[in-house]
Amino acid sequence: MQLVSNSNILIVGLGLMGGSYAKALSRVGFHVNAIAHKQADIDYAMERGFIEKGADWADPELIGNAELVIFALYPHVFKEWIEENQKYFRPGTLITDVTGVKRCVVYDIQEILRDDVEFIAAHPMAGRETSGIQSADDTIFRDANYIVVPTEKNTPEAIESCKSLGRVMGFSRITELTPEKHDEMIAFVSQLTHCIAISLMTCNDADHIGTYTGDSFRDLTRIANINENMWTELFVDNMDALIHQMDLFSAEFGRLRWMLASRDIEGMKETMRKSTARRIALDQGR
Amino acid sequence: MQLVSNSNILIVGLGLMGGSYAKALSRVGFHVNAIAHKQADIDYAMERGFIEKGADWADPELIGNAELVIFALYPHVFKEWIEENQKYFRPGTLITDVTGVKRCVVYDIQEILRDDVEFIAAHPMAGRETSGIQSADDTIFRDANYIVVPTEKNTPEAIESCKSLGRVMGFSRITELTPEKHDEMIAFVSQLTHCIAISLMTCNDADHIGTYTGDSFRDLTRIANINENMWTELFVDNMDALIHQMDLFSAEFGRLRWMLASRDIEGMKETMRKSTARRIALDQGR
Repeated sequence: MQLVSNSNILIVGLGLMGGSYAKALSRVGFHVNAIAHKQADIDYAMERGFIEKGADWADPELIGNAELVIFALYPHVFKEWIEENQKYFRPGTLITDVTGVKRCVVYDIQEILRDDVEFIAAHPMAGRETSGIQSADDTIFRDANYIVVPTEKNTPEAIESCKSLGRVMGFSRITELTPEKHDEMIAFVSQLTHCIAISLMTCNDADHIGTYTGDSFRDLTRIANINENMWTELFVDNMDALIHQMDLFSAEFGRLRWMLASRDIEGMKETMRKSTARRIALDQGR
Repeated sequence: MQLVSNSNILIVGLGLMGGSYAKALSRVGFHVNAIAHKQADIDYAMERGFIEKGADWADPELIGNAELVIFALYPHVFKEWIEENQKYFRPGTLITDVTGVKRCVVYDIQEILRDDVEFIAAHPMAGRETSGIQSADDTIFRDANYIVVPTEKNTPEAIESCKSLGRVMGFSRITELTPEKHDEMIAFVSQLTHCIAISLMTCNDADHIGTYTGDSFRDLTRIANINENMWTELFVDNMDALIHQMDLFSAEFGRLRWMLASRDIEGMKETMRKSTARRIALDQGR
């Protein structure tokens, strides 16, 4: 499937991410339709021109007309949907997703999928603290990373189409990772950071901290405002990788505590110099 | 001492904070002088009009002319300076500071200080990742908290003058805490967050994370770019309070890990709902 200007795209799931995709893709001129759970979300998207048509059920006509289908669903719902409705895909359909964990969906979906339909996984590294299509905003893709997650089953054409999709939506960096590398990396840079933010926000019952706090506490807890249904599922689906990263962090945090308790000033300074150098390298894109 | 428009203010220490104070106070019309370690910093401040006069030594004339002296030094340097140079203060001088820890300086300084000079402690909750007067920027005080930290030895007049100082520099919230409450609170909202950011930045040797990371990791590690000399001193000076907060955080983080490992979905969701509610309350200033 070649992504051209009059391609028919179907988005399944109109939450924050599905809605933001619809907004971005209709703006650049594609024919975008959607299937969603709630009619109100479809109405919202149609009124704003994010989609042309929509249905609150797995409408065979919408599914069969699509050349590209994008799944913006929770992992377990995604698999169920494919099992029940893949019979409606037209031959040659390309499907992709936005799921934040990959090993647990990519292999299963590729296993159960019809031979004449290809699934190429992708993870848009963008989000907001608020959920739902009412928060849809395609500016979140600017300066953000879009990771294509192919397996040996994917064709070079599908990988290229998926990258084109990321480019047309305005992502600034398009990269490729295996499902294993993706899940390891995401456990560190995304899931661990959310675990830390949640724990920082809930570890102390101090009242009125807003009166005394500086920017640093606000920065570290911005993502403590979290969609508990989505994130518990993402955490459990990537449990082994996340627990490994939590343990690496705990060990390092414990090491800092030990250096402080034993007044190992030089050890603390060395750790801070390392963190400073790495943070500067991160800003410089290294 | 009444803070009036032609007051003579002396700033001791021209780093990021001393420089930002000098910039803010000269801009609103005070006569601002400074004593600093390096002549280059004094030259920098004079060229930009942050100060009228300066010296790279404890010039008795500059000290004796000041009605208000602001110390922007590391805690241990502050105490040494007072011991050596307090003989030059004129009677009635008010002194204040910007030190990020309070128990370890306030009582000692008030103990050794001449009876005709008053020390009222304050903590401006503002900062930047870069240090030195070259980073001086008084816009960091906007929307920031300024905490006055009086003891029983302080007069109502000195407390009021200190609050006025915070107001004229543009801080948006001026509050009062005891040294004990201040150090407990700062261990949580500032020092713990820095320990977390450092540990997150150093716990994993992953390369090229900038290529894959989203905003959350960048938010949580912004303050991992840290002045190691200042922060090790602040950590050690507040060790008991900081270790207590680190232990509270570790326990909560360990609880989340345990819930994940035992697939306690409802427990994780409950924790996330709590973190979400608290983060929203923080944004609403509650």
